[in-house]
Amino acid sequence: MLIVMEAGARPDEVDFVVRQVERLGLKAHPIPGAQRVAIGITGNKGAVDADALELLQGVKEVIRVTAPYKLVGREARPEDSVIKVGGVDVGGPGVVVVGGPCAVESLDQSRTIAEGIRKAGGQLFRGGAFKPRTSPYSFQGLGEEGLEILARVREEFDLPIVTEAIDQESLDLVAQYADCIQIGARNMQNFSLLKSAGRARKPVLLKRGMSATLEEFLLSAEYVMSEGNFDVILCERGVRTFADHTRNTLDLSVVPAIKRLSHLPILVDPSHGTGKRNKVLPMSRASIAVGADGVLIEVHHKPEEALSDGPQAILPDDFARLVREVSAIAAVLGRSLAPMRRMKGEQKE
Amino acid sequence: MLIVMEAGARPDEVDFVVRQVERLGLKAHPIPGAQRVAIGITGNKGAVDADALELLQGVKEVIRVTAPYKLVGREARPEDSVIKVGGVDVGGPGVVVVGGPCAVESLDQSRTIAEGIRKAGGQLFRGGAFKPRTSPYSFQGLGEEGLEILARVREEFDLPIVTEAIDQESLDLVAQYADCIQIGARNMQNFSLLKSAGRARKPVLLKRGMSATLEEFLLSAEYVMSEGNFDVILCERGVRTFADHTRNTLDLSVVPAIKRLSHLPILVDPSHGTGKRNKVLPMSRASIAVGADGVLIEVHHKPEEALSDGPQAILPDDFARLVREVSAIAAVLGRSLAPMRRMKGEQKE
Amino acid sequence: MLIVMEAGARPDEVDFVVRQVERLGLKAHPIPGAQRVAIGITGNKGAVDADALELLQGVKEVIRVTAPYKLVGREARPEDSVIKVGGVDVGGPGVVVVGGPCAVESLDQSRTIAEGIRKAGGQLFRGGAFKPRTSPYSFQGLGEEGLEILARVREEFDLPIVTEAIDQESLDLVAQYADCIQIGARNMQNFSLLKSAGRARKPVLLKRGMSATLEEFLLSAEYVMSEGNFDVILCERGVRTFADHTRNTLDLSVVPAIKRLSHLPILVDPSHGTGKRNKVLPMSRASIAVGADGVLIEVHHKPEEALSDGPQAILPDDFARLVREVSAIAAVLGRSLAPMRRMKGEQKE
Amino acid sequence: MLIVMEAGARPDEVDFVVRQVERLGLKAHPIPGAQRVAIGITGNKGAVDADALELLQGVKEVIRVTAPYKLVGREARPEDSVIKVGGVDVGGPGVVVVGGPCAVESLDQSRTIAEGIRKAGGQLFRGGAFKPRTSPYSFQGLGEEGLEILARVREEFDLPIVTEAIDQESLDLVAQYADCIQIGARNMQNFSLLKSAGRARKPVLLKRGMSATLEEFLLSAEYVMSEGNFDVILCERGVRTFADHTRNTLDLSVVPAIKRLSHLPILVDPSHGTGKRNKVLPMSRASIAVGADGVLIEVHHKPEEALSDGPQAILPDDFARLVREVSAIAAVLGRSLAPMRRMKGEQKE
Repeated sequence: MLIVMEAGARPDEVDFVVRQVERLGLKAHPIPGAQRVAIGITGNKGAVDADALELLQGVKEVIRVTAPYKLVGREARPEDSVIKVGGVDVGGPGVVVVGGPCAVESLDQSRTIAEGIRKAGGQLFRGGAFKPRTSPYSFQGLGEEGLEILARVREEFDLPIVTEAIDQESLDLVAQYADCIQIGARNMQNFSLLKSAGRARKPVLLKRGMSATLEEFLLSAEYVMSEGNFDVILCERGVRTFADHTRNTLDLSVVPAIKRLSHLPILVDPSHGTGKRNKVLPMSRASIAVGADGVLIEVHHKPEEALSDGPQAILPDDFARLVREVSAIAAVLGRSLAPMRRMKGEQKE
Repeated sequence: MLIVMEAGARPDEVDFVVRQVERLGLKAHPIPGAQRVAIGITGNKGAVDADALELLQGVKEVIRVTAPYKLVGREARPEDSVIKVGGVDVGGPGVVVVGGPCAVESLDQSRTIAEGIRKAGGQLFRGGAFKPRTSPYSFQGLGEEGLEILARVREEFDLPIVTEAIDQESLDLVAQYADCIQIGARNMQNFSLLKSAGRARKPVLLKRGMSATLEEFLLSAEYVMSEGNFDVILCERGVRTFADHTRNTLDLSVVPAIKRLSHLPILVDPSHGTGKRNKVLPMSRASIAVGADGVLIEVHHKPEEALSDGPQAILPDDFARLVREVSAIAAVLGRSLAPMRRMKGEQKE
Repeated sequence: MLIVMEAGARPDEVDFVVRQVERLGLKAHPIPGAQRVAIGITGNKGAVDADALELLQGVKEVIRVTAPYKLVGREARPEDSVIKVGGVDVGGPGVVVVGGPCAVESLDQSRTIAEGIRKAGGQLFRGGAFKPRTSPYSFQGLGEEGLEILARVREEFDLPIVTEAIDQESLDLVAQYADCIQIGARNMQNFSLLKSAGRARKPVLLKRGMSATLEEFLLSAEYVMSEGNFDVILCERGVRTFADHTRNTLDLSVVPAIKRLSHLPILVDPSHGTGKRNKVLPMSRASIAVGADGVLIEVHHKPEEALSDGPQAILPDDFARLVREVSAIAAVLGRSLAPMRRMKGEQKE
Repeated sequence: MLIVMEAGARPDEVDFVVRQVERLGLKAHPIPGAQRVAIGITGNKGAVDADALELLQGVKEVIRVTAPYKLVGREARPEDSVIKVGGVDVGGPGVVVVGGPCAVESLDQSRTIAEGIRKAGGQLFRGGAFKPRTSPYSFQGLGEEGLEILARVREEFDLPIVTEAIDQESLDLVAQYADCIQIGARNMQNFSLLKSAGRARKPVLLKRGMSATLEEFLLSAEYVMSEGNFDVILCERGVRTFADHTRNTLDLSVVPAIKRLSHLPILVDPSHGTGKRNKVLPMSRASIAVGADGVLIEVHHKPEEALSDGPQAILPDDFARLVREVSAIAAVLGRSLAPMRRMKGEQKE
């Protein structure tokens, strides 16, 4: 940490700051300069609240140097984390394609789509039973009934399930039925929910908030990990900008940035990230090309009848093409599709 | 609602769209044009999910015309709502100044600050007992102990209390101790919490999310109202932009925009909105000048020792000046400070 | 300036950085720490290009401390600059209201509007003869004919003229006819134009770019001043954000931020800043309340026939009300309307 | 175009709007509805200025339907444009990699880098002789001397040259020396410069402005084309957002969006788009994966000594790896590197 004093700061002001720093158990290193004095601070192992120092007389600015997170950082764990989701590896050498409808609407709908996902080579199934909707008058999901449908889909197609929890009550249910608990973008800073997810015994898929900085995103993952759950998967899903040709602006540069700072896997959701069906395939290719560990794709066999987010869902046939192209891009990076969970029938052999 | 067909759409595609519209119980009005056909849609009283129509063959775009909210709108209630917070009117002809520390730290701290607020003419007291913090390692608030301190402050200084709830559990406690339940920016789209607040028997102060559009903001208020709690106060607290001279960019134009669309009161929080102490006074004046019903101000008698957000807190003396200037600006708009809750001593007379 | 070394940087890497710093004629102050070494740098009077240092082996980050501008800063000139525009003081104790149409359309139109401006108490007249338009097919202004109209308006109503230059050619003409050269938001980083304006003999009104940071804004003013023209007036006109209830988001907090860093006057343009007529009056009040030195207002007597930007123009009667309210707000801050240029008739007395 | 009337609009107000529309030579189609009347408008072949209509009594909103551009659109030219830059095809089946330093610093520097570019398989050379710099005190480029160096590099290595023009004067010089005139992001709405580029006889590389919408970007290209120069190449280089882990946020979704609307080629500049050397390779792969026609890469053999933008330049060896990976990604999409201009030595054979 560095404290920059104002140009005209008096020696006694500098001394006072030095004493305050030492009172916090840190070491202060004044650097006299031509125009102004700066004070280097060392000895802080964790995060020091710099706010208080900024207010002292004569202080112009406090500049933080150390990262404010611990468990999510590469310094805590240099090698990549591989998270097992119902038997499928996320974050290893393999690349995953998660597919499914925005919302679980019926058993028939989910079975039809899941069959397409499995055939195409998607390794995980997604579908919302609890939907956070902007309007109270929009379809809010089937709730526990939806979770039961998802469980039946997993049984039949051997696809591990990723589904969203939106509060304590739904989190308990999701943790019971699903293989991976999704925390949505709107809840990325719902810290109570993050802590609860940190006490659950299932992996957590954490989506980046619509206006979250990289540091805030990692700190939200730190919330989950600091409660003891180290199985966290990150997911970029677009941020909010002035650009109006897509619903959100997918920030793919965050993928290499995360890979550099953190050992956690990072997926990309081009369906929510663009909100437009015709952008999903190209942005999926780009996501794998930039180094993401997989993509989340909304798939619907009748998107014009979907109860939510129809315009961004692709057809099962397009999903099959997407898996093929994603796989070919992965090969360029020396990766391949992560192995699927083996079908029970196969396992018997 | 208007459906715009693609330039080369065939007549049977237009017919199909018309039939689908009618299937939804609406009326379709095709408008043949030189380049393309448009289809006007009428008869929708509430919000129709336009997504499905957008996917039909030959459709280029669906343009929504009707507002998606009902209860928050001026059409539901043309006159301004006045919300009573512990006996103080918010949203009437008067202007309120809410003051207090970011976080309740101790009884002494809260008493000292509350005394300054009351003397200066502030009508409501704010202070966090439950703090949503970006880092899990930052001070998270005193919890119920903080609420007890707030209750004692109310007793002693007759200042109604506004304090934040961050989950179901804290909401129940806040509703029990405080006069107004604050929902913070990070929880603006925590829809479960909004619904719970809608079932509480206390007014709700809803802060705008960091990247919320006006429509999303109003729809979040609609969540609370749709559960039966009509006592909602809105609060602008800055949005996230590229600008780096303040922590957030305070969007004052949202005040007249809300006044036009909604009957709900709107306050402004220049402390969080700027994150810089020296911007609080000028932005408070501007907030009242633009037509806000009041301001929320962080006050601390020793900001350099504050456990959170010290750099944006102002001193009690500066708060007194702020109340005076805000009052003078209000007078230009034909308004004045809202009456304070009468001190018990005075009430006896 | 501070150089932060990586956690595992070797002593010889630190030494190499120190030598490079000294090679630049600066002093290096290594600060050994528990986790990493930092190197304080002093002795840089102007702006050092930090980029090169950032690339040295073992360097994690370079943190700049000194402001990169000189002439615009308060350190160069502690007291406020007062700029004379055709005899009207901008930036002194008085507040100015600049009014006029978006585009000069005809002598009749300009005379009618100017009469309203003058009667209402506006001190300066604005109107575009050269219009930068997003589409090549939109009305691009009357050119020199428009400047002649503006000159006649000045003669008749004794209103000094502010009008925009968009390239070298129009700049020469504007400098010849007008009292103040406006550089528009789209040209804020047209550095060739800024330098030309710096060699002109008329004051320059520089509008903030749509996505300019405060530092970039001040550096653009520095471009003008570094060529010898010290008469620069800044103007906030809204920045581009995700918010869609106004055309731009007016960033009023930039006003006190500029007042702190720079001695230059700062105006606000709520017409372009909101793009909506019904927001102009409240945002004008807020602009003066926050401390701006004046406002720029689009006025048109027949906005429904305006050739550009009609929806944000207000009627002359509304302008008169605006001047009254702005004046009342200014009084709260101990200011008043700046004196008008005296009418020639009056001067004779 | 659609005009939405207010809920309580009177019949005579509707009639008046209809007459105004007809006065503009268009057809009006009133659509009576349960809550409000809408008026469909047809017959507008080009862009109608909707502003005026928005101001009529009783009008709530005017919704535009037709695209405001003509020449850049797919409707004007369904097939992709292929632009020849000094004998290299941009926008055809091939993919181009443009490499070179941010600024031309010396003949030696340019030769060394160009040699690396040519060997690695880069088809075009870039380097700035005129640099638009945020600060007037930063290195502004070598000017015509730099252009002469570029011309010699072209001769020696047979690499066509792309270089930036920043005003009329430099444009004339660039058009004389170079093979392609670059218009930078800061000048994307310098309409005078766009018009001049439209009268030049060389292809134009137009970079997207830092806060430009897709429509504004296309309209700027329309400016160039409307003057007769149809050889326009677009370039995404990142937009400005709140995200702080990269210098700008590279908006790759704009590539498929442009491909859908326009026939013009689109390149991506991941060097400026991220501002960080370690993001350039992954974002280059992603750019080609999403469908871009090529990438612009800053290369420097001694980035720590570069006179501008060192931190984003990569080494010639890394450039060679980039060309290989980009080529492999292109193959997945059925594309390959565009043929290089043949060396003179080879041509002789």
